[in-house]
Amino acid sequence: MPKDNYENLKEKGKEISTLSSIATLLEWDQETKMPEGGAPFRAEQIETLSSIVHAAKTSDSFKKALEKLIDLKTGEILDDTLDDRKKGALRAFRRTFNQETKLPNHFVKKMAKANSEGIHSWQKARKESRFELFLPHLETIINFHREKADLLRFKDHPYDALIDLYEPEMNVKKLDLLFSELKPFLSKLTQKCKEKKEKKHSFLSASYPIEDQMKFCHFILEKMGVDPKRTRLDTSAHPFCLGFHPTDVRFTTHTSLTSFYTNISAIMHEGGHTLYELGLPAEDYGTPLAEACSMGIHESQSRWWECFIGQSASFCSFIFPYLKQAFPSQLRNVSEEDFYQAINHVSPSFIRILSDEVSYILHIILRYEIEKEFIAGTLKGKDLPKVWNEKMEETLGIIPETDAMGCLQDVHWSCGLIGYFPTYALGNLYAGALFETFQQTYPDWEKTIARGDLSQSLTFLREKIHHFGREHSPQTLIENATGKPLTSAPYISYLKTKY
Amino acid sequence: MPKDNYENLKEKGKEISTLSSIATLLEWDQETKMPEGGAPFRAEQIETLSSIVHAAKTSDSFKKALEKLIDLKTGEILDDTLDDRKKGALRAFRRTFNQETKLPNHFVKKMAKANSEGIHSWQKARKESRFELFLPHLETIINFHREKADLLRFKDHPYDALIDLYEPEMNVKKLDLLFSELKPFLSKLTQKCKEKKEKKHSFLSASYPIEDQMKFCHFILEKMGVDPKRTRLDTSAHPFCLGFHPTDVRFTTHTSLTSFYTNISAIMHEGGHTLYELGLPAEDYGTPLAEACSMGIHESQSRWWECFIGQSASFCSFIFPYLKQAFPSQLRNVSEEDFYQAINHVSPSFIRILSDEVSYILHIILRYEIEKEFIAGTLKGKDLPKVWNEKMEETLGIIPETDAMGCLQDVHWSCGLIGYFPTYALGNLYAGALFETFQQTYPDWEKTIARGDLSQSLTFLREKIHHFGREHSPQTLIENATGKPLTSAPYISYLKTKY
Repeated sequence: MPKDNYENLKEKGKEISTLSSIATLLEWDQETKMPEGGAPFRAEQIETLSSIVHAAKTSDSFKKALEKLIDLKTGEILDDTLDDRKKGALRAFRRTFNQETKLPNHFVKKMAKANSEGIHSWQKARKESRFELFLPHLETIINFHREKADLLRFKDHPYDALIDLYEPEMNVKKLDLLFSELKPFLSKLTQKCKEKKEKKHSFLSASYPIEDQMKFCHFILEKMGVDPKRTRLDTSAHPFCLGFHPTDVRFTTHTSLTSFYTNISAIMHEGGHTLYELGLPAEDYGTPLAEACSMGIHESQSRWWECFIGQSASFCSFIFPYLKQAFPSQLRNVSEEDFYQAINHVSPSFIRILSDEVSYILHIILRYEIEKEFIAGTLKGKDLPKVWNEKMEETLGIIPETDAMGCLQDVHWSCGLIGYFPTYALGNLYAGALFETFQQTYPDWEKTIARGDLSQSLTFLREKIHHFGREHSPQTLIENATGKPLTSAPYISYLKTKY
Repeated sequence: MPKDNYENLKEKGKEISTLSSIATLLEWDQETKMPEGGAPFRAEQIETLSSIVHAAKTSDSFKKALEKLIDLKTGEILDDTLDDRKKGALRAFRRTFNQETKLPNHFVKKMAKANSEGIHSWQKARKESRFELFLPHLETIINFHREKADLLRFKDHPYDALIDLYEPEMNVKKLDLLFSELKPFLSKLTQKCKEKKEKKHSFLSASYPIEDQMKFCHFILEKMGVDPKRTRLDTSAHPFCLGFHPTDVRFTTHTSLTSFYTNISAIMHEGGHTLYELGLPAEDYGTPLAEACSMGIHESQSRWWECFIGQSASFCSFIFPYLKQAFPSQLRNVSEEDFYQAINHVSPSFIRILSDEVSYILHIILRYEIEKEFIAGTLKGKDLPKVWNEKMEETLGIIPETDAMGCLQDVHWSCGLIGYFPTYALGNLYAGALFETFQQTYPDWEKTIARGDLSQSLTFLREKIHHFGREHSPQTLIENATGKPLTSAPYISYLKTKY
């Protein structure tokens, strides 16, 4: 019997996914294992393989297989006997194909070169806190992204074309609406929390032997349900998670003797990403059904475990006795309440990645506002430090003393990630919406977690999120899961209750 | 200016080498880092990439680039202005191309499947010491190799076609000549050593903490000149070395609390392979000039460091005081002479990989004789255990009690490596020949090594071997390095002097 059209497409997709997964291994190895002298050759390996992956993604034979099932122009599904899941897969296949073919090869190559030069200049600029070293590269990158938006095409705002790459169907109009409610609320709440007098939490920076830290992290991962047979954990400069396939997911943490909780936090964050990758349906590998829905949905999974679960009072009450047992001297005279307060301490920071749950999104909104203006052409690269500091003062009430602590802190722009930042905020909003539904679904959730049973969480996310892959757009996925369209209300109400 | 033909060919070769190096990374990761659940998907990654590598190696565009420079049929070089190095590269390019294109795709696929089934059945058969489980697979593999020899073509003996894949220009006639001298000599010497009464060397199986072992291994690697910036060392079930590029070479060892010297030995062996990979000329990457000459030459490099240097009296005299310092309790009452005798203790073993310098090659000759008969059709798979045990008794005077300790001990046949074993013996003969020249070149070598200065060794191998890559055939390389054709005389005389 000849293969049906969908199976034929899936087979071609599988080759592409498999090759992409090898490129991902090259990245993982680069960040965790590669000897430093191997860097220049690694860049060549990545370039060689990426060009093969790109050729496969845009090949005629793939296009033909796709066109038998969906009209690439209109999106009309040509085989009505397919089930809804497969129809969703086809829409996502089409999305990716159209995106991949809109950017001409020579443009992609030029941009890749600019990004690689951008990272180098940024590293030096940040180290020496000299914005002028990065400025020419920033300007090049902005110009490329303005051109990129034009090539990708957009209806209302050129920035829509960029955010859509990372968060399908998200746009400036929707973001502006979400952020217009969040910004004043978060600013005020941050200010309020700042004014509260709180104990010093010096026990968090006591010395915790790395080996004991890791033993504890493994205990948490086991509780979360991270399967050690399908994952591996390493350390790297910045924690991350990369999945090759639902049977092989790699994640990392960063350890330091005097910041134990940062390690736990990273473990739960990356563990959340890992659970998502593990929960994608392996039987659909090669199709969008086995791919993460979006960067924002991915971030909702990590923040769920890091903040909503990990920083909850019930999880603290479960974990604290074990912590006391593992670290008796470091936690002498520390109560469960002290611990809970310490890990939920709100204090505006210059640095995004060190920020608390309340002020974090303000950092994202600041970057979003700047990116939007870069792409609209209403803000020039040279004015970045000034505008950055003004916005910091306006939203967080603090001004960084150096650009290294300010507009040079993130790698994103230097490597050509414009349009990506909003997904960090969306992750929290998605998680907030999901958490509201979770609380309604499992009214006993706090008691269950306090007992150390995290299975409700995992079951909920597996059913509502993981299993779907890219069948739906992020917003449809959330709407289906929660029964209503996404707003910032659940997240705001979550923070109101907590702080 | 248009690229010249050689540069054009090199560029195509570079893409092939780069893709192959990625396949090598998949292997390395599989043996060292991959979570066990990732195994089935890893097989798919390797298959997908291998078929791309094979397609590139046999592509029309590569063929055309090659044909502009060398006649693929006759081997005549078409551009006489090229220097000798480039001419050597073209001959090696042609060799590989002709080999790759002789085996039809469907045959390679069938064979790959048989090998993969072979390994599985062998693992079970060895574990349970039940030869009959492996037998049908062994017969399939033998038949495939008889067909493979026909497809590759040969002049005198079908086995010539197989050994030639691993050791260019080696053949049955030459091997028979080399082994006919070695076999009686080694048999007699093994017997003689066995009769000597020797002290028990129980200190070698004392308990040496792994961390201290590894500290000591790193000290040795530093002395050998293994660059930590271009290498990484891990542990794995069986030690190995894989090079992606002269700037990124990975090697492993195997550690156990009670076999410290096995670790040192593996470190020096794999360190020798590593130095070879590091010494290949990076500027020629993409051409055979940046590839190891042969498996035999590779093995000469590992055995050089493991045996000729590592087990020499002068290296012992350098290292022993450091060992005493690092392991005072384990080496209490042990003299330098005891240590030297212990690591050079000769005692025939059933197991090839546990064998001493004297009896090791007898294990190889046994396998060679059997393989040759398999391929000639004069020995059937079912008769293997009987013939194996007879030959063990004849050459080593011992008979294994089980097939697991006998004909099932090696993985090679199960995964389709027939024709490979002789390279292990050749490695020792090459090293013996090189070592004779080394001693003449550096008459003070013993004093220098005893001081802990191993640089003469590295300089000698860099100049005589590493730099050439595949410019010459293994035998020409050795002849150029030593000033005479390869015989077994230098190795025999080395052993005579030592034992």
